[in-house]
Amino acid sequence: MYLRKLDDLIFHGVDRISSGELGKQMGLTPSQIRQDFSCFGEFGQQGYGYRVSELREQVARILGMHKGFSVVIVGVGNLGHALLENFQFEEQGFKLVAAFDSSPNIYGKVISGIPVYNSADLTAWLKEKPTDIVVLTVPRAIARSMAETIADCGVRGIWNFTNMELELDRPDVRVENIHFSDSLLTLGYFLSEQENSEKMK
Amino acid sequence: MYLRKLDDLIFHGVDRISSGELGKQMGLTPSQIRQDFSCFGEFGQQGYGYRVSELREQVARILGMHKGFSVVIVGVGNLGHALLENFQFEEQGFKLVAAFDSSPNIYGKVISGIPVYNSADLTAWLKEKPTDIVVLTVPRAIARSMAETIADCGVRGIWNFTNMELELDRPDVRVENIHFSDSLLTLGYFLSEQENSEKMK
Repeated sequence: MYLRKLDDLIFHGVDRISSGELGKQMGLTPSQIRQDFSCFGEFGQQGYGYRVSELREQVARILGMHKGFSVVIVGVGNLGHALLENFQFEEQGFKLVAAFDSSPNIYGKVISGIPVYNSADLTAWLKEKPTDIVVLTVPRAIARSMAETIADCGVRGIWNFTNMELELDRPDVRVENIHFSDSLLTLGYFLSEQENSEKMK
Repeated sequence: MYLRKLDDLIFHGVDRISSGELGKQMGLTPSQIRQDFSCFGEFGQQGYGYRVSELREQVARILGMHKGFSVVIVGVGNLGHALLENFQFEEQGFKLVAAFDSSPNIYGKVISGIPVYNSADLTAWLKEKPTDIVVLTVPRAIARSMAETIADCGVRGIWNFTNMELELDRPDVRVENIHFSDSLLTLGYFLSEQENSEKMK
């Protein structure tokens, strides 16, 4: 959230900002902001505020964005395609190196500069080229077994788009589940409440 | 979160559950759970716990899932395709009625049973067929103007996949921004912290 806000401030040419103003724009109290940043050392200066670009740099470092973690996409259906073609991995500090798919119509291609290999070769490939993160966009039915296989190959981060909650019982592997529905249901709730309050009038 | 958990319990054949057990499985305290549910009336019974299917029904009602809000997808690129083909709108209680795209290669088609119309006809269409929610999967450059246009046509919910933070200055319109990056950056942070703690050993 901070990163997005700071990028936005930089985009709008803001050089420095007080914790009070930052809080106002983000719906947080100044003390929450000071507390968040103090966990990671001292960024701000009393009475001067934060230098936006410096703060952005620090937040990016905390997030490990300078490390250039390697990423592989497994499953090049519509969603895999969308990520290959539109998602700015580099901009977020990640290095997308390859994609895998089991369809002969897909593997062998190069999409947005990224080679797509045969899924049958995935484990051999991962063992040879240690990879930090796998983006999982395979069908739901094979999501769990694929995640286990990938974790066995030493991958420590799984970005899970399969619409199936994955919880691997491995403390060394982190799974982030993307739940599209959550925000759609939030919209539904908002509309529903709006209707209810209109009825009350 | 509750809805997903309850669906999961139903899938696994669990009939009833205590707030204590539900809390354990969700990383919440029993009192948090009782408090969350008490806002919406009394669901549970002392010493008996919650009937899972009943609780699921109630949570779904609170979210307005029984209302069948109508949904239109604007922008049928890779992501729009992925949503058309793979996202279970009906299962979440929404009714996907149409899609729009500006490319002559796309409009005129029917994808997964949903007609795709020319974007040029969008405003006329929306005025004729009041629509609750628009899924925005258009290029970033036209995201804002498209959102404003859509809101002008009376749409009250925008599910924004354009990777651009949209804040419309309209209290009657709710925008839910999907930020893929957030969870990828969370993964990066986890890996980075893991590396740091390995270095400390």
